[in-house]
Amino acid sequence: MDHPSRLKKCEQTLIEQDLDGLVVTHPANLRYLCGFTGSNGLLLFLAGRRVFFTDGRYTQQAREEVSGARVFIAKGLLLDDAAKLIGKLSSAAVGFEAEYTSVAAADQMRKQVHNKIEWKATTGLIMRQRMIKDAEELRIITDAVKLGAAVYEDALRTICPGVRESEVAGRLEYAAVRAGADGVSFKTIVAAGRRSALPHRRASSEPIPKRGFVVVDSGVILRGYCSDMTRTVHMGSVSREQRRWYEAVLEAQLAGIGAVAPGKAVAEVDQATRRVLRKAGLDRYFTHSTGHGVGLEIHEPPRLANQQSERLEPGMVITIEPGVYVPGKGGIRIEDMVVVTGSGSRVLTPVTKQLIEV
Amino acid sequence: MDHPSRLKKCEQTLIEQDLDGLVVTHPANLRYLCGFTGSNGLLLFLAGRRVFFTDGRYTQQAREEVSGARVFIAKGLLLDDAAKLIGKLSSAAVGFEAEYTSVAAADQMRKQVHNKIEWKATTGLIMRQRMIKDAEELRIITDAVKLGAAVYEDALRTICPGVRESEVAGRLEYAAVRAGADGVSFKTIVAAGRRSALPHRRASSEPIPKRGFVVVDSGVILRGYCSDMTRTVHMGSVSREQRRWYEAVLEAQLAGIGAVAPGKAVAEVDQATRRVLRKAGLDRYFTHSTGHGVGLEIHEPPRLANQQSERLEPGMVITIEPGVYVPGKGGIRIEDMVVVTGSGSRVLTPVTKQLIEV
Repeated sequence: MDHPSRLKKCEQTLIEQDLDGLVVTHPANLRYLCGFTGSNGLLLFLAGRRVFFTDGRYTQQAREEVSGARVFIAKGLLLDDAAKLIGKLSSAAVGFEAEYTSVAAADQMRKQVHNKIEWKATTGLIMRQRMIKDAEELRIITDAVKLGAAVYEDALRTICPGVRESEVAGRLEYAAVRAGADGVSFKTIVAAGRRSALPHRRASSEPIPKRGFVVVDSGVILRGYCSDMTRTVHMGSVSREQRRWYEAVLEAQLAGIGAVAPGKAVAEVDQATRRVLRKAGLDRYFTHSTGHGVGLEIHEPPRLANQQSERLEPGMVITIEPGVYVPGKGGIRIEDMVVVTGSGSRVLTPVTKQLIEV
Repeated sequence: MDHPSRLKKCEQTLIEQDLDGLVVTHPANLRYLCGFTGSNGLLLFLAGRRVFFTDGRYTQQAREEVSGARVFIAKGLLLDDAAKLIGKLSSAAVGFEAEYTSVAAADQMRKQVHNKIEWKATTGLIMRQRMIKDAEELRIITDAVKLGAAVYEDALRTICPGVRESEVAGRLEYAAVRAGADGVSFKTIVAAGRRSALPHRRASSEPIPKRGFVVVDSGVILRGYCSDMTRTVHMGSVSREQRRWYEAVLEAQLAGIGAVAPGKAVAEVDQATRRVLRKAGLDRYFTHSTGHGVGLEIHEPPRLANQQSERLEPGMVITIEPGVYVPGKGGIRIEDMVVVTGSGSRVLTPVTKQLIEV
């Protein structure tokens, strides 16, 4: 991974924002900037130096993984040791991650340094870098999506009436680990029959019924990067009305993908999917946003929703996942991962979207 | 679950702390107080009323699960709607969870209400209640520990030279879900050979070698409650030196359990395990604390470490898990879950601690 460029770019941002230093503790940001994959780390940028703090459990791991910073093993709280270093400066403005620092931790921070050290809340500073994936990240994400697709297609074969939702989910997750995934990027959703109308219900211990939609929303983690996909199949033959719902969601999803291009406002992509569902009289059943960024975390900016002002840029990786959920009847969601290219978009998810009747 | 008592006790604490209200958003605290298991909820205590806010995805689920509070479905951010309600009071002191509220969210909160509303950072307010488990919680935790033990013993049979660590971990996790667990309480650790000297390394894709220790640290979630256990086995026959290490860790673990009693300072329990390892000349290889509380979350207070001032109380559930990690050679950890009783302690984990040579 190109940690040197990432660290330098971050330091450039600190200069632009008039910061003498920055405390980074969010695990995904640490992994992105310097490669550390443990759960407890702190990267301190301070006046041109970089120091990485962790605890004794990670001594060897940090030495193997961390690049671009001196590793220091703290005896107690990492912030205590970082504060000692910061406190040696006669004055400084030091940033911290406002989204990932609790009020309790921020209070602690303030108490630990003298009053010429100014703590500055920053937001999205590293996330803005992470939004644009580089070539190596895109290769890994592409591989993660392929692996996620393969285990989904395996799991699809286990779907039949009477099998528990949790059994399908469990097999998919086990297959992912066997195939070399670090794990799954979220608890697999398998929602069958009427339960398919609950957009974020995890797999239950209920059996899959003989008729109705089955929504499978799953993802794997490969070398730290997440995949995310949803397909909906139908148990038994589908009615005309339900086929119409399915076709409308698919048309909306394709319209969303068609709207993806560099420079395009994310709200426009959201409107593109919603417009199709409105024409089909189904927009009131589409109760969530059109998609989200994916990378080291399963939900990253940009959010593809109407209220958002972000614009798409080449190298962003997003999901396009409209859905229709008719209470008491059933639901459909179709989701691909898509990369924004220099001229438009490329769909990463290599799985058919034609309606399958199991 | 006895949500009514929990809610009343929390309201009693608010009176003691001169608070007119409290905003709770931490998922484990929400589940504890009112039964909600979704990912996005807000429970507002305000002047004798209780209102629960969630979003449209959880309409049906909140109605089924939430007890003791009126359910309200918010269109946007939950805090926006809660703030509207709070802002109707002419003045009030309203608490929030300082450990679980980010600086960014707290800034938002302050902007949304008039200046006679005073936001007060609270810490550990609900956690102090949760530390003492009631009879029903102890029953569920005991069942979770048994289930965790059963799937560990299954997984133990899959351990042999050449099998990947991740394969052992994957089978254990799949078995847990099949046996009715909600999931695992953390990514299963399987660390074999030299890797056993890394105390918190997750299972890798490396094969288990013919010789050396294998540390398996695993846990399941049952009806929301976590289990946590570690056993260490040895591949092939163990050398005299390595047997001595194992016996020292076991003796330290038993000394730790022996030190558990109501009224005892947590630091004393930590010292009890450390003392045994010091006598064996191994204390410099014991690089973490002796244990931690377990409940709805895998890591809860109290922390059993030297710098901590907490005292044990009946109903606390803790782990006792000393370890020895010799860099480049291998490591051993032995961990049980233990409940503090009226007179001493009871070990919950029903698995042998004699050294097994695979």
